[in-house]
Formats: sequence, structure tokens, C-alpha cells
Amino acid sequence: MVSLDDVRTAAVRVKGVTVRTPLLRSDALDAICGGTVWLKPECLQRTGSFKIRGAYNRLAALAPAERAGGVVAYSSGNHAQGVALAAKLLGMPATIIMPSDAPANKVAATRGLGAEVVFYDRLTEHREDIADALAAAKGATIVPPFDDPYVVAGQGTAGLEAVEDLAAMGIVADLAIVCCGGGGLASGFAIGSGLPVVAVEPVGYDDVVRSLAGGAIVRVEAPGPTICDALQTLVMAPLTFDILSGHGATGVAVTDVEAAAAVGFAFRTLKLVVEPGGAVALAAVLTGRVDLHGRTAVVVLSGGNVDAEVFARCLAA
Amino acid sequence: MVSLDDVRTAAVRVKGVTVRTPLLRSDALDAICGGTVWLKPECLQRTGSFKIRGAYNRLAALAPAERAGGVVAYSSGNHAQGVALAAKLLGMPATIIMPSDAPANKVAATRGLGAEVVFYDRLTEHREDIADALAAAKGATIVPPFDDPYVVAGQGTAGLEAVEDLAAMGIVADLAIVCCGGGGLASGFAIGSGLPVVAVEPVGYDDVVRSLAGGAIVRVEAPGPTICDALQTLVMAPLTFDILSGHGATGVAVTDVEAAAAVGFAFRTLKLVVEPGGAVALAAVLTGRVDLHGRTAVVVLSGGNVDAEVFARCLAA
Repeated sequence: MVSLDDVRTAAVRVKGVTVRTPLLRSDALDAICGGTVWLKPECLQRTGSFKIRGAYNRLAALAPAERAGGVVAYSSGNHAQGVALAAKLLGMPATIIMPSDAPANKVAATRGLGAEVVFYDRLTEHREDIADALAAAKGATIVPPFDDPYVVAGQGTAGLEAVEDLAAMGIVADLAIVCCGGGGLASGFAIGSGLPVVAVEPVGYDDVVRSLAGGAIVRVEAPGPTICDALQTLVMAPLTFDILSGHGATGVAVTDVEAAAAVGFAFRTLKLVVEPGGAVALAAVLTGRVDLHGRTAVVVLSGGNVDAEVFARCLAA
Repeated sequence: MVSLDDVRTAAVRVKGVTVRTPLLRSDALDAICGGTVWLKPECLQRTGSFKIRGAYNRLAALAPAERAGGVVAYSSGNHAQGVALAAKLLGMPATIIMPSDAPANKVAATRGLGAEVVFYDRLTEHREDIADALAAAKGATIVPPFDDPYVVAGQGTAGLEAVEDLAAMGIVADLAIVCCGGGGLASGFAIGSGLPVVAVEPVGYDDVVRSLAGGAIVRVEAPGPTICDALQTLVMAPLTFDILSGHGATGVAVTDVEAAAAVGFAFRTLKLVVEPGGAVALAAVLTGRVDLHGRTAVVVLSGGNVDAEVFARCLAA
């Protein structure tokens, strides 16, 4: 498992490397939800999402001999960039495994951070097998997107920062609302903040919602496409399930239309660029799926890596 | 004139009312300019621009009898919203004079803050005359957009915050680069920060650039349209001229294409929504019009009130 001390250790490792993202307020948002919201905008984090926190904590904890072997990760999105930048900062070679149909701008962004990109065919190959083979051949370390205690502890630094910054203002929040794919950020946030966590997923990819509600890990099968590309996880890990259920976390799901509306709200009112998957926690507040009347919540905006076409579609929705 | 003590007094007045906007960094921006940039994102300020700072400082300094008469201001944009919110927070009635062809969303935003909107005809009426008549009839106070020592001192709180936050990190900046219309923010920033200021304007509306270069106030005549609607000032005031020239400020102008490209950079890389007029200081850095090699600069993003259509056009540019 992962302890608060692990998160504190992670916070020491990432200090000066990650951005201590501020807590932001919005009069309009408070008026809509009837409560007090403190936004934690991880879209302003290096590489545009929280992922650098966990990736850096994982790699910085390696022994020098392990670092020499480099790092391997599979991701077409935010995790890829987080791992690539963490490796670059630590002087480690990085190989990122991406589907051959990954968007060109994400491939370019990952290569721009110095990583080698290896493509695989979504239909005929398994990225985990390729990662295992590459890691074995190179003596490299695999950084999984969420099923790793160092990754979870690193993501937890966002929660630790939030409660520290609130405490400095004499404020104690009632809960945290966190965007959720495999639960790495949500479980780290629960530990780092000590707050009750509501994990928010897109409808169809609501494996964490269902797992927490039912008390056992559930895999979702063949959901349709979602605009929340960062949150397309089919099943959480025992690690994140145990942490979230142990902390009494609950979950809610939002639709793509609701996520898109939250992206539009962030544009018009918050002046922040948030990607659809990074806006689901905000969507849960705007729609009242999480009732905040008279309550104080930390709401995480987990990332902002959205291309202009998708963004324009969200603003028109 | 306006002193650093005036800015400090303003900082006490606006504390807890305005957002202490954070200082943000960008690896990509530093790599492009060869220096170190600390971004002051006033797009994250209440009402989406720095204008609330000056408006609130002006109104909070009024005597109770003066407050009862309410406030009048003329603006179709950021200043209108800043004045409207400041008046609302102080329980004062506000009347905002807007051109009859003002965008519906800006009219709605100003009314949404509780202000009464009075329209005038750009071609046949002068807004200053209407403001004078209304103020006389109502016993109201006029809050000018920049030609007022309280307004300048209020805008200066942004500069004071920036140098205080840098000092807490042991950092001293070499200069500040500030978006400029009539020079209220730029002159306040010069006083509040104590830094050499570069004022940045759109080409055609570069009255401050020319005035500072020539040593006397210059009015620009009939410039073409600009995408930087927040910065369409034809002539600065003696107050802002005296402050900026007294502080040795200089100016540069950027084109609409450069401002639009900076809006796109802020979207893609900073994950911030910045309006064209709020992005001209960033444009001056991205284009190298202000050389930052080996230097540390505070760069102000002064506002984020841009509608979806203009934003999409900037991203496509």
C-alpha cells in the first residue's frame, strides 16, 4: 500500500521539478453549486497534466544502476509526456510505446521531450507484451500509468499541496472531487489530502464507479467511444481499488456532453484550457451530480492537452 | 503622481477581494526566448482581467456619502466588468455606458454583475459627455479606465505581488513586459514592481510606444481595426505618460498576427485562455521584439475575455 509518509517523501522528490499549482476560485462556479470550490488546475502543470508527478517520483526513486537501463512506458497521451519529461530531467533514455494511429501532435510532443517512440498495432499486438519485451532487452524500468505505489504517491503530492495551501488560509475542505481513469490520481489524492474523495469517470468507462459501489473490482466491456480520451481505462488495479475503498471513496459518472460543457465553462469563465477528461470533476459539480450546497470542495482539473478541433467542438456544444 | 505607498495602500484595500494571481513558468517559453519568464496571468483574475484591481481601489477609497451616489463608467469591455463587480461588492449602483453595437455577451456579462447599461451611438455621441451628464444628474463618481491615480495604484498591486512572490523565492527580475492601452496597468506595474517596464501595444494603436520614444504625448489618428479590442486607445494621459517616462519605460508594438499567434501559444502550451489584447506582451517575447536572452522577466497576461469565434480564428492563424 501507500502511506501519507510516502506522499511526503514524493513531495520532497518532486519539489522544484513539478509546479506547485495554485488553488483558484470562481464566483460563478460557487453561485452555481451553492458551495465553495477550490480548483486545483493541473492543466498548468509541466507537460499539461498531473502525470509528471507520479512519473518523476517513480524514476527519481530508482537506484543509479537501474536508471542507466532507461525507462519504458505505454501511453498515447498525458502519461507518455510525463514519463518522457521525467526521464529527460533525470538523464535517462525513454521509450514510449504508442498505437500506430496515435495523433501526430502527441507523437511529436513525446519525441520533442527526447523520448523514442515505438509503434504497435492496436488490433494485432498487446502493448504490455511489447513493453515487457523491450524492458527485458534494455534492462529498462516500466512505469505503469497507475498500478505502482511510487506513481500513486507521486500523484498524491497534488492532494498534499491542496490541503497544505488551504490550511495556510485556515480552511478545511469537506471533500475532493477528482477525475479518474485507473484511479492513480484519485487514490493518491485520497492519501495526500486525507479528504473523502469522489472519483469521476466518463459514462461507459465507469469501472471505478462500479467497483467502489459493488465492493469488488469490475471490468467494463467494450464501451463506445468517449471524448475523454485520457480516461479510457477498462479496469482499475487492486492497488488503487484497495486504497480508494479503504478511504471510503465513492464515484459518479458524467456524459461526454456534460464533459464538453465543462470544457466550455472553463474556457468562458475560468479562462483555463482543460481537456474533456480533465473536466469531468468540474462537470460533476456543474451538473449537481455531486451536491456541494453548503460544502467546501477541492476540484481537480487534471489536464489540458486538447487539440484545437476537439476544443472548438466543446465550445460549440 | 502615484507612489509605492499608494500601491501598498491599494494592496491592503483589494486583499481578499482580488485574486493574488500566481506566477507561472513554461519550459517551452524559456527555451524559445533564451531567458526566464515568470507569467502573471491576470486572465485568472475576477471578471477575467486586471481591471477589478483599479476599479475596486478607486471605489473603496470613496467616502460613504460619495459611495451613495453610485458610479459611472464608459467601456464596452474589461473595464466595464471590473467597475461593475467592484460596485456590486461595495453595494453601489453602477451605470456603464456602452456603444449601441457592443457585443451582446459583453452587455450580458456587465448586466449580470448588476450594472445598468446605457447605450450611445458611436457616430453621433461622445461617451465622455454622456458620462459627465449622468454623473452630474446622479451625484455619481466616474471611474476612468486609466487616467486616475487610484486606478493606477490599484493596477500596480499586480506588480507589487509579482516582485513579492519572486522575492520569496530569492529571485530578482530584470524587467517587466506589460500589455498597454492607455498605460494604467503599465504605469502601476512600474511603480508597484520597481522594475523597468516595456509597454506593448498593437501596431496602429502604439500611442504609448511613440510617446515614450519621442518624449511627448502623441495621439494616433484613425488606425485600422485590431483584433486587440482591449487596447484601442488613441492617446495616453499626462498621468500615465509622466509615470512611465519618469520610470524610464520603453515600448514596442506587435501585429495582430503576432498577437493571435501568442493566443494560440497560450492555448497549446500554457493551457491559458488569453484574449488578443492580453497576449501582446507574450507576443513581444515570442517574436523576440524584446530580447530576453540571459534575462529574467515578468510577463503579464492581462486578460482572457475572448469569445469562441475570435479564439478559434487565433488558433487557426
